[in-house]
Amino acid sequence: MTILLEPVATVAGGRVEATDDNWDRERAMIALDETRFSPDSIAGLAAFSHIEVVFHFHKVAEDKVQFSARHPRGNMDWPKVGIFAQRGKARPNRIGVTVCRLISVDGTKLEVEGLDAIDGTPILDIKPYMRDFAPREATHEPEWAGVLMANYW
Amino acid sequence: MTILLEPVATVAGGRVEATDDNWDRERAMIALDETRFSPDSIAGLAAFSHIEVVFHFHKVAEDKVQFSARHPRGNMDWPKVGIFAQRGKARPNRIGVTVCRLISVDGTKLEVEGLDAIDGTPILDIKPYMRDFAPREATHEPEWAGVLMANYW
Repeated sequence: MTILLEPVATVAGGRVEATDDNWDRERAMIALDETRFSPDSIAGLAAFSHIEVVFHFHKVAEDKVQFSARHPRGNMDWPKVGIFAQRGKARPNRIGVTVCRLISVDGTKLEVEGLDAIDGTPILDIKPYMRDFAPREATHEPEWAGVLMANYW
Repeated sequence: MTILLEPVATVAGGRVEATDDNWDRERAMIALDETRFSPDSIAGLAAFSHIEVVFHFHKVAEDKVQFSARHPRGNMDWPKVGIFAQRGKARPNRIGVTVCRLISVDGTKLEVEGLDAIDGTPILDIKPYMRDFAPREATHEPEWAGVLMANYW
């Protein structure tokens, strides 16, 4: 079964190339596809401080996608784990999901901060961040995850 | 531009029809597509307490997808907001994103709890939940969001 998706918006501005760290203060615009969407499509969104953005890592070549296990970022200091046990971009379907700050809304454009997607990235969905969608209890994760993320934002 | 995706896994078990509330203790299996994936694809995932699941609301007919604004759940008590200002399933590209508990891993199968996706749902991606991907500051949201979510889990 193949699922066909059409991007609903595109990232405009921000970083031109994907680099690993320091995304927290990166600002960019999200421009809705105006052939299908209007300001009504995002009516009320400005009442949320954060949004969840689902996007496509369009710069990752299909033949670079990993299906098995690898060291995150190719770093041998970290354990070799499955592609679904890490958040790297060379993953099947090349989907990224990130919660970022919503700075402002202007017509069909959103200004965001802390979105780790580069200029030109196709966006597949935009959702409001609701605190009730966060885990309802304490979470735990392996130590390497925290080390990897230390300078990400 | 059209983006073609192949499901990486399928939900097996759990609820047969999508209903609105009380998902928190729902258990289901996530079965990886064994033609492309092996236990190596999820090696190390069991060290995480929670996973983020990206899935396709495959039961929503394309002609039911909303592009503009509507009252969440059709409830007039809540404001009419854009489809991207709510998390309802009749949305462009019909993508759901949920963090759920990872109960156990057995070969290419994951047992999960609190996944709001029904039996047979195609899964587009599985990511480990890392606390560093949560918002780094307090969030705010409109009052209706909390009211809508009161009985969701």
